[in-house]
Amino acid sequence: MNTDKEPNLQGNPDDGAQTLVADLESLEAELAKQKDLYLRLAADFDNFRKRSTQEADRRAAAQKEAFIRELLPVIDNLERAMPNVSASSPEQLREGVRMTLEQLNQLLRRHGIEPEASQGQTFDPHRHEAVATRQDPSQPDHTVLENFQRGYRRGNEVFRPAKVVVNDLTHAG
Amino acid sequence: MNTDKEPNLQGNPDDGAQTLVADLESLEAELAKQKDLYLRLAADFDNFRKRSTQEADRRAAAQKEAFIRELLPVIDNLERAMPNVSASSPEQLREGVRMTLEQLNQLLRRHGIEPEASQGQTFDPHRHEAVATRQDPSQPDHTVLENFQRGYRRGNEVFRPAKVVVNDLTHAG
Repeated sequence: MNTDKEPNLQGNPDDGAQTLVADLESLEAELAKQKDLYLRLAADFDNFRKRSTQEADRRAAAQKEAFIRELLPVIDNLERAMPNVSASSPEQLREGVRMTLEQLNQLLRRHGIEPEASQGQTFDPHRHEAVATRQDPSQPDHTVLENFQRGYRRGNEVFRPAKVVVNDLTHAG
Repeated sequence: MNTDKEPNLQGNPDDGAQTLVADLESLEAELAKQKDLYLRLAADFDNFRKRSTQEADRRAAAQKEAFIRELLPVIDNLERAMPNVSASSPEQLREGVRMTLEQLNQLLRRHGIEPEASQGQTFDPHRHEAVATRQDPSQPDHTVLENFQRGYRRGNEVFRPAKVVVNDLTHAG
């Protein structure tokens, strides 16, 4: 588009003005089109914003729901075991608890959460939270003597630190 | 902005043209501004789109993670019970299983999932899945005689239908 056309001086003085008017009209049309494009994009953006919030809610709920659906069979097993508990042998009961724990840990593993074994390891403040100390001269200093509450990790991240009892020979009497 | 001011000649055939040129320039400026607005909005939209996907992933993971964090104490309790299982009385063990179930159901309830009691209710194909029939003349026809696997609901929705044994007096010998 040529907008900087000089008005034609000789010949028809209105020729230049007519060209200008034509330019003006085409510019106005383009401006209207551009404003329309803007409004459409703004409306799309607005819709996307609303939908994406709903979509995020829906996806978050669906992920949690999927986890819960996998938890239900563990509960089913416990419910089925319930009436037989009194009649079971101690071995059967131990096996029942062990299996329930195993099912729960498998569920966590499927979702990327790994239980950690801390006992016998050197105390690591990133992964262990010392809830008590004891003196055990048969073990190296700063060794985790007991796992009070299991720790969990997700990949290389600490998901929950373990609560542990730590060997403290430095302050031993 | 008037950058193209012409020397004023005689009479003034150019007055109209000058106004047109001024209009043209202001229109061009407005069009440039409008195009710029459009490009900024498009860039914002694009960024929002990218961020919202990441944000949705993050939120979904966080919701599931929160649920898992609430599940861990149930696992902790089972782990603590484990060494004492063999030495416990049948009553203690029954109570242990009952408490574990109660903790799991409380966890589900906190997340909007309610266990359903189906036994004794009239069979409802929306909420019950018949896995077997029996004849029990002491109960009304189509009554749920036994809950084979518990059903769950979320609000008024069926989260998981119950698997039930239904009274079928119609086909009773």
